[in-house]
Amino acid sequence: MMMEKNSLDFVFKPESVAVVGASEENWTGEYVQRLVMYGYQGKVYPINLKQPQVFGYKAYPSIKDIPGTVDYVVQGIGIERTPDILKDCAAKGVKVLHLFAGRSSETGRKELIDLDHEILRLAKSYGIRLIGPNSLGINNFKTRFCTTAHDLPADFGTVSAAVQSGGNSTDLVRWGVLQGLKFGKIASYGNALDLDESDFINYYAQDPETKIIMLYIEGVKDARKFFSALKNASSLKPVIVIKGGKSNAGVKATASHTASVAGSWNIWNTAIRQAGAIPAHYFEEFIDLAVAFYYLPPLKGKRVGIIGGGGGRIALSADECEESGFDLISLPEDMRMELKQKAPAIWDWIGNPTDMTILGGSGVRNRDVLLMMAKHPDFDFLIVNITECWPFKESTSTFRNNDEIDGYIEVHKMGLKPMIAIFGDRSWGTEQLDNWRFKLFAATKSRIRDANIPFFPTMLRGTKAVSELTNYYNRTGKTRK
Amino acid sequence: MMMEKNSLDFVFKPESVAVVGASEENWTGEYVQRLVMYGYQGKVYPINLKQPQVFGYKAYPSIKDIPGTVDYVVQGIGIERTPDILKDCAAKGVKVLHLFAGRSSETGRKELIDLDHEILRLAKSYGIRLIGPNSLGINNFKTRFCTTAHDLPADFGTVSAAVQSGGNSTDLVRWGVLQGLKFGKIASYGNALDLDESDFINYYAQDPETKIIMLYIEGVKDARKFFSALKNASSLKPVIVIKGGKSNAGVKATASHTASVAGSWNIWNTAIRQAGAIPAHYFEEFIDLAVAFYYLPPLKGKRVGIIGGGGGRIALSADECEESGFDLISLPEDMRMELKQKAPAIWDWIGNPTDMTILGGSGVRNRDVLLMMAKHPDFDFLIVNITECWPFKESTSTFRNNDEIDGYIEVHKMGLKPMIAIFGDRSWGTEQLDNWRFKLFAATKSRIRDANIPFFPTMLRGTKAVSELTNYYNRTGKTRK
Repeated sequence: MMMEKNSLDFVFKPESVAVVGASEENWTGEYVQRLVMYGYQGKVYPINLKQPQVFGYKAYPSIKDIPGTVDYVVQGIGIERTPDILKDCAAKGVKVLHLFAGRSSETGRKELIDLDHEILRLAKSYGIRLIGPNSLGINNFKTRFCTTAHDLPADFGTVSAAVQSGGNSTDLVRWGVLQGLKFGKIASYGNALDLDESDFINYYAQDPETKIIMLYIEGVKDARKFFSALKNASSLKPVIVIKGGKSNAGVKATASHTASVAGSWNIWNTAIRQAGAIPAHYFEEFIDLAVAFYYLPPLKGKRVGIIGGGGGRIALSADECEESGFDLISLPEDMRMELKQKAPAIWDWIGNPTDMTILGGSGVRNRDVLLMMAKHPDFDFLIVNITECWPFKESTSTFRNNDEIDGYIEVHKMGLKPMIAIFGDRSWGTEQLDNWRFKLFAATKSRIRDANIPFFPTMLRGTKAVSELTNYYNRTGKTRK
Repeated sequence: MMMEKNSLDFVFKPESVAVVGASEENWTGEYVQRLVMYGYQGKVYPINLKQPQVFGYKAYPSIKDIPGTVDYVVQGIGIERTPDILKDCAAKGVKVLHLFAGRSSETGRKELIDLDHEILRLAKSYGIRLIGPNSLGINNFKTRFCTTAHDLPADFGTVSAAVQSGGNSTDLVRWGVLQGLKFGKIASYGNALDLDESDFINYYAQDPETKIIMLYIEGVKDARKFFSALKNASSLKPVIVIKGGKSNAGVKATASHTASVAGSWNIWNTAIRQAGAIPAHYFEEFIDLAVAFYYLPPLKGKRVGIIGGGGGRIALSADECEESGFDLISLPEDMRMELKQKAPAIWDWIGNPTDMTILGGSGVRNRDVLLMMAKHPDFDFLIVNITECWPFKESTSTFRNNDEIDGYIEVHKMGLKPMIAIFGDRSWGTEQLDNWRFKLFAATKSRIRDANIPFFPTMLRGTKAVSELTNYYNRTGKTRK
């Protein structure tokens, strides 16, 4: 079967969905529940032999009994039932069968590998495309179509991902959203018996709603097809790739997970770079890179200005920033002269990074110094290193924190220069949920995100991601945005 | 003045404290407030010319007017007033003056450097020791003595720290506690005009309440004294050192922060290792290493067993674990035979790492596999890689999560083998505070901490810290605990 241009629209934009095996008691029923909960506007048909209704939808004993047409079917029962279901799908003109069912070839069992071959042969003969087996499913954040198990945030954007692992696609959405990522489409494609990473890459490459492509790959069956797709997509938009199974142990893990044959990480890394894509080594880096590419313009220079506090934080941060290849230039002479005028008592004590905790009562506030940096041609890029250590009681800490963030947002809104924020990232126990300081941290983070300031939890992570971005734009000469 | 054995007891265990400049309206008053709030049992004397009472304590116009003796004085007004205050302290037999006051030599101003010299000369002539200038102060978690601005958690332990930066000492306590660290004593010693890093290292080295020493150093004035103290302390207990000001930019930042002359990181790194201490490169690593040394026995082997889920998470985790130098051995043959008996349908699909999401209904649960690993001599060390991606609704996710954690805690309690937990670490915005999934994450984290399972937010961070620990015990042959 040849891929046609836009041919995966039926995967991401089906008008009707049937869920085989859905009941209100089992996990498969949650597929139906989420379609309702997230506001999918198409038709939903639970397939259930015994129950007349599932989560408010009329249930049918089989796919053949559904009155209208069906575009997309979720197979949520044992994998051995798939050939029968495929026959029903063929009778109904179904376009795509999503095999949530797993325990397939990844178990290493010969009879299950044979079953896979039979399923693929049947699907091809009927002209039905397959997602999976062992696939969590599809998200379209804009149309609210959701056959995965993620929470589906209301915000949507232009970051689309193909993620071989269902758990990692869940983590990507959950943690990516916390860091401000806005997603368009996600395919958690599992064992890739039919539709595979290359199909999704090709689709995203020409999808006008996708600006950045993220890929989590455990293994590919056709390396030539994959690298050709990757190269083509990378010529059009940034493609960020993370590989599961880079080590000996990781390779074994991917085999038992999605039946993938992983390869050496060095070979992968080189090939990914040669294709023009951007490799990520760790899951955190995978998210960081997407945040950088989603929010920042095609930045090429590395002269950075930093402001925040306190002193110990900025000392360590300066080290991390330089480790990532940024140049923390000395404050330009004309800026120093301006500071001398405005803050005569401490002007020569102010440096880059600027420790904003020393500015109190000096005549300049954090926003003034940041604005000088934003206006000055010597700085390519700005970092606000949000003070976490305010040592005051609730009312004073809250006031100082809000005032600091106000200043950063004010300057960021002027759009004079690319800017990122650094803010610590530690999850809390139940005892912190009622603690004012941690609630203030939560409010701070929401404010940064709402202001569309790209956010990273450590200076090293933030500057490494931005450094990759500058390298990318220097290498490609691209001027996206 | 010569340091005597235990001579810093008057710093960490004073029986009376005066706070110069404390009022209910200013920040210095918060020193008084915290002493009350955290339950300090000694005498507290606010020094205030105008107010008769501060936070319930009778205030005095000057130190000389206090009726009883005073051990420890916080200087919370302008640094230029210090000579006068020292005279009052001398008249009253004060043992230590804590100069919270900053804007001293770190400003680079000659007149302030001269003032420092005068302050030091006066203090020596009076036999008064100085902490600071620019020092946040002292914590004794056990006696509830607190002249810093940290929250003072009720739990105390045996991790003691000397932290040149007040902000970093605040971060260390706040973030360290979230990761399960239990502190004994902390000195945030600022510019180190008199009492310096070496004094605190020497004290902690022979302090029976301190088992692990943490140091954040920006610069040292007497390198020979420092390395001698470090070497001696390291021969007695693990000493973890992080240096602020490793890069060109970082060096400049430390000069303006605590007036320190920082040196090349490579020289430092080598010297720290030669002294037998353990260098940390990043603040997160600083905390991770302390967690590892605090909770784990003198582990020497690197054969690791991992359990958790889902499949994508364990694939990436296996890569990170191997990168840190651990050996993810194949499941031993006798363990495989036991699994064949107990889980005939999937026994040959179970590997190391074990993806616990495949175990459902198989005949073995996560605790069974973990217990087999804990009992088997082929494993040196175990990692529970807590599943975050349960894709179910609240009731099901909560049940699965609790059952998973129950199993880990059950096996951990048997004490058969060293164990760490990996659990993602992302702070949340306000919208997550009321989200059941994030509340469940918070509860999970509290449970791990309460069970005394050392916890790390990523596999890479956890395994790097434990790898340093195994290297340490292999190198030194020590058998602490």
